[in-house]
Amino acid sequence: MTNSIYTSFRRKVYVIIYQTDTKAGRLFDLILLGLILFSVFLVMMETVSGFNLKYHSYLITLEWIITILFTIEYALRIFSIKRPIRYIFSFYGIIDLLAILPMYVSLFLVGTNILTVIRALRLLRLFKILNNPQFNTQSIKLKKALIASRNKIVIFIYFVLISTILIGSIMYLIEGKESGFTSIPVSIYWTIVTLTTVGYGDISPQTPLGQFMASLVMILGYGIIAVPTGIVTAEIARHNYENNDTVYQNPCPDCGNEEYPKDANFCPKCGHALDNK
Amino acid sequence: MTNSIYTSFRRKVYVIIYQTDTKAGRLFDLILLGLILFSVFLVMMETVSGFNLKYHSYLITLEWIITILFTIEYALRIFSIKRPIRYIFSFYGIIDLLAILPMYVSLFLVGTNILTVIRALRLLRLFKILNNPQFNTQSIKLKKALIASRNKIVIFIYFVLISTILIGSIMYLIEGKESGFTSIPVSIYWTIVTLTTVGYGDISPQTPLGQFMASLVMILGYGIIAVPTGIVTAEIARHNYENNDTVYQNPCPDCGNEEYPKDANFCPKCGHALDNK
Amino acid sequence: MTNSIYTSFRRKVYVIIYQTDTKAGRLFDLILLGLILFSVFLVMMETVSGFNLKYHSYLITLEWIITILFTIEYALRIFSIKRPIRYIFSFYGIIDLLAILPMYVSLFLVGTNILTVIRALRLLRLFKILNNPQFNTQSIKLKKALIASRNKIVIFIYFVLISTILIGSIMYLIEGKESGFTSIPVSIYWTIVTLTTVGYGDISPQTPLGQFMASLVMILGYGIIAVPTGIVTAEIARHNYENNDTVYQNPCPDCGNEEYPKDANFCPKCGHALDNK
Amino acid sequence: MTNSIYTSFRRKVYVIIYQTDTKAGRLFDLILLGLILFSVFLVMMETVSGFNLKYHSYLITLEWIITILFTIEYALRIFSIKRPIRYIFSFYGIIDLLAILPMYVSLFLVGTNILTVIRALRLLRLFKILNNPQFNTQSIKLKKALIASRNKIVIFIYFVLISTILIGSIMYLIEGKESGFTSIPVSIYWTIVTLTTVGYGDISPQTPLGQFMASLVMILGYGIIAVPTGIVTAEIARHNYENNDTVYQNPCPDCGNEEYPKDANFCPKCGHALDNK
Repeated sequence: MTNSIYTSFRRKVYVIIYQTDTKAGRLFDLILLGLILFSVFLVMMETVSGFNLKYHSYLITLEWIITILFTIEYALRIFSIKRPIRYIFSFYGIIDLLAILPMYVSLFLVGTNILTVIRALRLLRLFKILNNPQFNTQSIKLKKALIASRNKIVIFIYFVLISTILIGSIMYLIEGKESGFTSIPVSIYWTIVTLTTVGYGDISPQTPLGQFMASLVMILGYGIIAVPTGIVTAEIARHNYENNDTVYQNPCPDCGNEEYPKDANFCPKCGHALDNK
Repeated sequence: MTNSIYTSFRRKVYVIIYQTDTKAGRLFDLILLGLILFSVFLVMMETVSGFNLKYHSYLITLEWIITILFTIEYALRIFSIKRPIRYIFSFYGIIDLLAILPMYVSLFLVGTNILTVIRALRLLRLFKILNNPQFNTQSIKLKKALIASRNKIVIFIYFVLISTILIGSIMYLIEGKESGFTSIPVSIYWTIVTLTTVGYGDISPQTPLGQFMASLVMILGYGIIAVPTGIVTAEIARHNYENNDTVYQNPCPDCGNEEYPKDANFCPKCGHALDNK
Repeated sequence: MTNSIYTSFRRKVYVIIYQTDTKAGRLFDLILLGLILFSVFLVMMETVSGFNLKYHSYLITLEWIITILFTIEYALRIFSIKRPIRYIFSFYGIIDLLAILPMYVSLFLVGTNILTVIRALRLLRLFKILNNPQFNTQSIKLKKALIASRNKIVIFIYFVLISTILIGSIMYLIEGKESGFTSIPVSIYWTIVTLTTVGYGDISPQTPLGQFMASLVMILGYGIIAVPTGIVTAEIARHNYENNDTVYQNPCPDCGNEEYPKDANFCPKCGHALDNK
Repeated sequence: MTNSIYTSFRRKVYVIIYQTDTKAGRLFDLILLGLILFSVFLVMMETVSGFNLKYHSYLITLEWIITILFTIEYALRIFSIKRPIRYIFSFYGIIDLLAILPMYVSLFLVGTNILTVIRALRLLRLFKILNNPQFNTQSIKLKKALIASRNKIVIFIYFVLISTILIGSIMYLIEGKESGFTSIPVSIYWTIVTLTTVGYGDISPQTPLGQFMASLVMILGYGIIAVPTGIVTAEIARHNYENNDTVYQNPCPDCGNEEYPKDANFCPKCGHALDNK
C-alpha cells in the first residue's frame, strides 16, 4: 500500500520532471530554464569587478540557493527514473552533475565557483521544452546535414592545418623577430588569424615581402572559405528535400531514448512500452 | 454638392499620395524620397562637429521645413484614406509618425532631434515607388526564402550563443585580467568578435595557451559560418525555381492591402472593389 | 594600285592587332600584355619613395617610351579598323585612350602621371589573347549568373544601407564621442566595417552597452553574409547545368562584335561577312 | 639462393613500408606519422627563444636522431621498390628527400635546419595510412569539385587582382602618405586586406572621403566573397550526386600508381600484376 503511494509519487515526479506535455511538466521546465539563465547571469556578473565588489555577498547567496535547488532536482531525477544509471551517464545526466559540482568544490578550492558557467550547457534542454515538431524536424535535418559533411570537413581542416604550419614557418623566416613573428607557433597563430579572415592586427607583416606573402595567404583564405561552405550547403540542400518523420518526443520511461517513430508503441532501443498517446 | 467636391478632392489627394502609376503620383513619390534622403543627410551632418558649428542655424531651419512638410503629408494621408485607423497602426503609418515626432519633442527635450534619423526607414517606400514587377517578384522570393530558413537560423544562433558563453568563460580563465579579458561578459564579446571573423583586435590573447584556444575558436567560426550560408543558399535555390505571380500593386483604397493576384477585381482581404486596371 | 597596297597593308595591320589566331597576332598580344604589366609595375614603383629617389629618371624615361608605343598602337587600331568611330567609343577604345592620356596631361599638370595605373584595365585584354573556349564559356556563364542575381543583390544592398544608417545612429547615441564614434557618418563607417566582418579595430565600442549592441550587429552581419552568397550560389548552380555555345571569337572586322555562334558566316549585329574559318 | 633470401627480404621491407593492410605495415605507418609530428613539434619549439635557450642541445640531438631514422627509411624505400627512379621523382619521393636534406645542409650553412618544417608535408601520408574507403571517396570528390571550379576561380582572381590595382591606386591618391598609404604597393596590400574582410587595421583610412571609399570596397568585398563560394558550392553539389568507385588502394608494386578500379588485376598505368586481394 505504502509502496503504491510511493510508486504513484515517483510516477508524478517523473511526469513533472521528464515530460513536457502536461501543464505541470511544462511549468517546471520553464522555471528550470529561467533559473539556469539567471544562474549563468550571476556567474558572469561575479567576474565584473565593479559589480562584484558591491554585491558579492548577494551573488554568492543567490548562487548557493540555485545550486541547492539544482541538487534537489538532480536527486529527484535519479529517484524518479526507472534506470537511474542510464540517466547518470547520459549526456544530460553528466551536465546536470557538472552544473552543481563546482559550487561544492569551491568550499575547498577557492575560485572554482566560476566553473558553474558550465550550467550554460543545460540551456540545451530548451529543445525538449519547446518540443515543437517544426523545430525538431529542422534541428534533426541540420544535424544530419552536418554529420554527412563531417568527413569532408575533417579532410579539409587537416589540409588547412598542414598549410598553416608551412605558411607560418615561411612567414617566420621572412618577417623575423622584429614584427611580432617571434616564433613558429606565433607565426602559425598569425596564419590562422589571417586565413580565417579574422585579422586582429595584433601581429601584422611589416616588410614588403611579408606583406606580399600575407596578400597571397589572404587570397588563399578567401578562396578556401568557399570549401566548408560549399560542403555544408550541398548537404543541407540535399537534406532539405528529404522527408523526415522522426521527431523528438517524450523520452522512453525506461531508457530515456527520444528518437522513435511517432506511432511507436514500444521503444526501439529497449523494447519498453511507451505511453506515447 | 460641396460633399461631391470634397469627395473628388479627397480622391485626387488619394491618387497622388497613395498611387504610383499616375504621373502626379510618381512625381510626388520621387520628391518625397528626395526629401527623406536630404533630411537623413541633414541629421547626419548635424553630428559632424566642424560642419555643425558653421551651419547650425541653416541645418535646424531646413530640418524644421522638412518636418512641417512631412507633417502635412501625414495629415493628408490620414485625411484621404477610407480607413485612417488601419493606416495609422500599419507599419508605414507608425514610421511616418515616428519620422516627425522627434523634432516636436526636441522643443521640450534638447537633443532628441537626432532621433529623426529614423526617417531612414521611410526609404523603404522606394519599393512602392519602383513598383517594378521584376524587383517585387525578386523581393518576395528573397523574403520567402529568408522566412523559410528562419527556424534553422534560430536554432543555429541559439547553439552559437551557448557556445559563446562557454568559450568566453574558458578564455576568461585562461587569459586573466592582464590581456583585456577583464570579465566573462567582455570575454563573450571577444568570442563573438572572433567567431564572426570580425576581429577588431581591441582585445586579443597574449598567452600561448590563449592563442592556441583562440586558433581553435577561429577554425570553429570558419566552419560554422558555413551553416547559415548553407541554410539560406538551399532555400534561395529552392525558391528560385518556383514561379510567383503575386506582385506588389496599387494598395486597396479601403484597407491598403497590396498583395493580391494581378487580375483581382476585389481585395482578397476586405472585399473592396479594386480599380486595378 | 597604291590603293591596293594600302588596303593590303591595312589588312595586315588589322590581322596583327585585332586577331589572335595568327602567329603574328598572338605574338603582338603577348608583347602588348607584357608591356602593360611592366608599365603598371613602373607606376607602382614610382610611388615607393626610396625606389623613386634612386631611379626617378629611368622610371620616367621608360614610362614615356611605353606611352609612345601605346600611342602608335592606338593610332594603328584606329587606322586599320573599318569603322574607327565604333572602336573609339567602345569599352576597350576608351580604356586604350585613357591609358595614354595621363602622361601627356602630366606635361602641363604635375603629378597626373600616377593616373596611368588605369592601364591595369588593359589587362582585361588577356581574355581575348587566351581565346580559350573553355575559359570563355566559364567566363560567360559566370557573367550570366552574376547578371541574373543583380536584382536580388541590389535589393539586398539597399536594405543593408538603410540598416547601416539606423545602426550607425544608435551606436553614435550609445557610445558618444569618447570612443571614436565622433559623428553619425563615422558611426556608419564603423557599422559597415563591422557588418562586413572586416573589423579594422580603428574604432571599437568601449561601453558595455555598446559592446552588447556591437555583438548583435556582428551576429546580424554573420547571418546576412549568407544572403548574397546564397543568391549567387543558386544562380551559378542553375547556369552550371545549362549548355552555352556562344564563345568569344575573332571580332567582326566591321563592328568589332565578338559574340556570335561558332558557325556564323555573317555578324549578327551588323551583317558583315565573317572570315570565321 | 642468397638471391632468394635477398628477394624475400626486399619483399618484406616493401610490404612493411608501402602497404597498409598488414599489421606490420600499419604499425610502421603509425610510428612514422608519430615521428613526423614529433619532429615538426621539435623544429617549432626550437624557434621559441625561452624554450630553445633551456633545451637547445636536447632539441638538436632529437632532431638528428629523427633525421637519421628518416634517412634509413628513405634508403629502404628506394631499395625495396622495383622502379626506384619513379619513386624518387614522385611527389612523395621529393618530399621525403626534402624532409632530410635541411639537417645535412645545416652542417655547412648555419640556420637552415629550420627548413626541416617541410616535414609537415609528410603528414599528407595520413591519407594512405587511413586508407578508409569512405574518406578516400570524399577526398576524391572534393578534389574533383575543386578541379572543376578551377577555371572559374582563376578568372575571378584575375578580375580581383585588376580591381585591387585600381582601388589601391585610388586610395593612395585620396589618403596620401599621412594615413599609412605610403605607396601604391602598400595601398594594394591594404585593398587585399579589406576586400578579403581580413581587416588588420594596421593601415586604415583617416579622411572622410577615404572612409567612404573604404566602405564601398568593403561592400564590394562582401558581395564578391559570394562568387568563389558560389562556384565551389555548385561544383560540390554536382559531384555529391555522382557515384565514384575509384578509391585509393595499395600502390602498384611496379610504378606506385594508386588509382585503379577496386577489382583490377593489372595496373592500368604500367600493366603490372596487382596482388589486390
